[in-house]
Amino acid sequence: MPTPVTTNVDAANDESISRLFNSQPVLIDVAPAHEVVPGMTTRTILTSGAPLAADAYTGGQRLGLLGAAVYEGFASTIDEAETLLREGALTIDGCHDHGVVGSVAGITSASMPVLVVEDASTGRRGFCTLFEGASPARLNYGVWNDDVRVNLDQLKNEVAPALRTAIQAVGGVPLKPIIERALRQGDELHSRNSAASLLFLREILPGLLSLNERDQKVLTDYLAAGDYFFLRPSMAACKVMADSMRDVEGSTLVTAMAMSCSEFSIRVSGTGDRWFRGPLPTLQDCHLFPGHTRDDLEVMGGESIITEVCGLGGLAQAAAFPLQSYQGGSAQALIERNLEMYAVAHTEHPTFKIPALDYRGCPAGIDIRRVVQSGTTPLMDVGLPGKGGGQVGAGAYRAPMSPFQEACEALGL
Amino acid sequence: MPTPVTTNVDAANDESISRLFNSQPVLIDVAPAHEVVPGMTTRTILTSGAPLAADAYTGGQRLGLLGAAVYEGFASTIDEAETLLREGALTIDGCHDHGVVGSVAGITSASMPVLVVEDASTGRRGFCTLFEGASPARLNYGVWNDDVRVNLDQLKNEVAPALRTAIQAVGGVPLKPIIERALRQGDELHSRNSAASLLFLREILPGLLSLNERDQKVLTDYLAAGDYFFLRPSMAACKVMADSMRDVEGSTLVTAMAMSCSEFSIRVSGTGDRWFRGPLPTLQDCHLFPGHTRDDLEVMGGESIITEVCGLGGLAQAAAFPLQSYQGGSAQALIERNLEMYAVAHTEHPTFKIPALDYRGCPAGIDIRRVVQSGTTPLMDVGLPGKGGGQVGAGAYRAPMSPFQEACEALGL
Repeated sequence: MPTPVTTNVDAANDESISRLFNSQPVLIDVAPAHEVVPGMTTRTILTSGAPLAADAYTGGQRLGLLGAAVYEGFASTIDEAETLLREGALTIDGCHDHGVVGSVAGITSASMPVLVVEDASTGRRGFCTLFEGASPARLNYGVWNDDVRVNLDQLKNEVAPALRTAIQAVGGVPLKPIIERALRQGDELHSRNSAASLLFLREILPGLLSLNERDQKVLTDYLAAGDYFFLRPSMAACKVMADSMRDVEGSTLVTAMAMSCSEFSIRVSGTGDRWFRGPLPTLQDCHLFPGHTRDDLEVMGGESIITEVCGLGGLAQAAAFPLQSYQGGSAQALIERNLEMYAVAHTEHPTFKIPALDYRGCPAGIDIRRVVQSGTTPLMDVGLPGKGGGQVGAGAYRAPMSPFQEACEALGL
Repeated sequence: MPTPVTTNVDAANDESISRLFNSQPVLIDVAPAHEVVPGMTTRTILTSGAPLAADAYTGGQRLGLLGAAVYEGFASTIDEAETLLREGALTIDGCHDHGVVGSVAGITSASMPVLVVEDASTGRRGFCTLFEGASPARLNYGVWNDDVRVNLDQLKNEVAPALRTAIQAVGGVPLKPIIERALRQGDELHSRNSAASLLFLREILPGLLSLNERDQKVLTDYLAAGDYFFLRPSMAACKVMADSMRDVEGSTLVTAMAMSCSEFSIRVSGTGDRWFRGPLPTLQDCHLFPGHTRDDLEVMGGESIITEVCGLGGLAQAAAFPLQSYQGGSAQALIERNLEMYAVAHTEHPTFKIPALDYRGCPAGIDIRRVVQSGTTPLMDVGLPGKGGGQVGAGAYRAPMSPFQEACEALGL
């Protein structure tokens, strides 16, 4: 590869990453998806990963799509929905093409509330559905039953309006300062969001206090129930930040990583909307909930790995030693893997810093050239769905190499 | 030393430490000191450290005592208060003898609100004044002026009543679960309480929501203002836990460490209320606020080192890598010093655990025999006051050896 080309690529990557660094994601609203998501109709159902043919969605991801069709009233039973899907009568699309990122199956349909995150510097927006709360009945983990419907209704009719009012009362919640602080408090903002969820609670508190008594209780119960609320704001913020890196000519930085039930795919700044597709990632460490084995696992897709694109999650494991008890490993392993990730990164993040690494900046900007040259692919912290639906554990995935190689070839590298 | 004696000491220490492990400190109230602190009269002024003769209190600690005398109306000026103190007309006593622990100068006078922490298993109580909020005007850091008075009045008349109502509304706040979680979120519960303060906020939230609008605002402003609120509940909880180890015949475990302006002293389980006094600790790492040098430092006392007695603070530095930016050092140094502290500890804490050390329990129970035999004295994380008053930095102190040696001699070891 001749030197001038490399120099141009480096300059393109500098431009791309500087946009990510300058992005200022702010949570400004919660609204029904069809009202705010670009290109979304009342018939659209979004799902995780580079889009597949309708028949290629299988297992939990397929059930999630069918459940959404029933939830939105396009069909009255799963069987009816299955017929519609086979006949091409459902509008299925990939989340990423609409500024959305989806958790696990990533099912996002018209009436579902989504967090609206806006870059204060550019106005660019990103979206993500709400954390489903303590309920194990989650459409995104491939479950459809009355409990799921009740939970989705409660999110739509009670939680979202209360959260919307509270967000508007405080004039929006800047998310980057929360991410920066949470990295000092044991979170890597993907599989661990315990501190970030508390920091968000503190920021939204004046808005919470402004609500009527009923809404106060709804929102308090929702926000104080667990430690996972902030994953969704983190994902939407990362979608905004990652998209800010898009479409820089010649840039080799990854702007999206996403999974469907059968593929792992990436997008690269210099190649726009093109997906480079490969096999599913391989599972490294994992920790399964009691009573489960690896045979129980089923991939249903997932786009929370947008956090890794921004230097968080699997690229910031040393910020989150408590991951040991959630997804396995040891403190030393978390440090070593984190250090390994610098080999794939364009640079270090100026404000996302890791205290255990003496405040070294997170690896920032996954460079497909560095991935290929180092033979190292990105690590990703993930929740693990199981056959028959629901979460059965958590672990760390290792991305496949082929999409990075193909992307290099596409850019003539 | 004959083996049987050692065995008896070990058994005594097992008994002593098991009481600490079984202690369940709960924040149950906030009340004026004279109403709840045993043996406290409306004339009493408590201060940090093994008690000294009135003339021996100097500098900021003396000014704190005089300021409290003015604040309580015993004198109308500092000069008048000075006369009273010289003539023995003020009732000065050590915090520890009343179940109280004091931050820095530890000034605790009759009308000041104190946190009331009660051990749910034994009913034993501990007390500590409230965090002064964002104001730099702090009596405990040797400042007395109108701002201090205004701040103390605001704590007494507005913050304390609101906090009291909120605590009672939630039926008390168990503190041990907060400490356990905060250790996983970057706190060591002495110089760093950022996560613990947020966790407390989440626990008190239903109580906060039950307040009238004015009190909601007062308490929100107070709790959300900074990251230091929880130091005081942590101190009071540690006082309760440490006192639970008291008075086990033959036990060599430390039950208190405290500083006045001129001495560092310890108490030991097997020797009851006796103080073993020594010189002030030596400063190791420190980080001074801009514009200050070590020449500006002045010791004004301090009893927040009760947290170290319970395995936190300087004994749990590897739980709190962000200490680097507050008091100096590096991640590796924090790990090494934490590991060093196991040499002085009787055992490891079963529920206070350090993620960066693969969830090893905190060093638990400072054993005076181990201190002397290892030649290692406890490390203590501290805020550093400056000449003329106020905080000028933070650092880590190393305890002197002589009090541990004297205590061993007193126990015939």
